[in-house]
Amino acid sequence: MAIPHLAPGQVLNVLPLGAGLHQAKTVALFKSENLEVIRLVLCAGKSLPPHRVPGEITIQCIEGAITVSVEEIDRLLRAGQLVYLSGNALHGVLAHEDSSALVTITLVK
Amino acid sequence: MAIPHLAPGQVLNVLPLGAGLHQAKTVALFKSENLEVIRLVLCAGKSLPPHRVPGEITIQCIEGAITVSVEEIDRLLRAGQLVYLSGNALHGVLAHEDSSALVTITLVK
Repeated sequence: MAIPHLAPGQVLNVLPLGAGLHQAKTVALFKSENLEVIRLVLCAGKSLPPHRVPGEITIQCIEGAITVSVEEIDRLLRAGQLVYLSGNALHGVLAHEDSSALVTITLVK
Repeated sequence: MAIPHLAPGQVLNVLPLGAGLHQAKTVALFKSENLEVIRLVLCAGKSLPPHRVPGEITIQCIEGAITVSVEEIDRLLRAGQLVYLSGNALHGVLAHEDSSALVTITLVK
C-alpha cells in the first residue's frame, strides 16, 4: 500500500477502474494531518475481516457491490452509495462483485 | 441547508442528480463529531466565493465540471475527480456546467 506524496490541491482520479480492477490493488491515495483517503479494491468474493479504527470514516462504493457489516448489521452498497461509521465501530467489507470503494478516515490524535 | 439526523451505518445516495439538479439545493448530508459531508449543487455559471474553513477537506466532483481555486491556483475537476485542501486554505468554486460535488470537511476542535 503506497502513499504517494500528494500535494494539497493536486487532482486525483477516483473513477471506476472497470476492466483494470483485476490488476489494481488497494492504495492509500493520500494521508495528511487529519485525513487519510484509500481506494479499497476487492475482487468478487474477497473480504476485509471485521476491524476497528479510532476515527470516524466514510465508505463510498465506486463500482460493484459490497456489504459493509457494521456492528454485525449488514448494509449493501452499490456504486454511488455511501455510509459513515462512528469511530471504533467494528466493521468488515465483503465484495459480491469486483468492487472498489473510496474510504475516508479521520485521523484521531 | 438541512442536516438530517443520519444514523451511523445508514446508506446515502451520492449518485449524479442528472435532470433533477436544477431543482436541487446544496445540502449537508450529515454532520458528526469529526466530519461533515455536504453535497454542493451549483448550476452553470454559479460560484462559491473564496473562503476558508479550519479543517482539511476533500472535494469530489460528482457531475459536471467545476474549477476549484486554491490559494489563487485553479484546478479543473470533472466527474470522478477529487482534490484535498489543507485546513485554512483559501478556496472558491466555479461551475462551468450544472454540477454537484461531495465536500467532506474535518471538524477541527
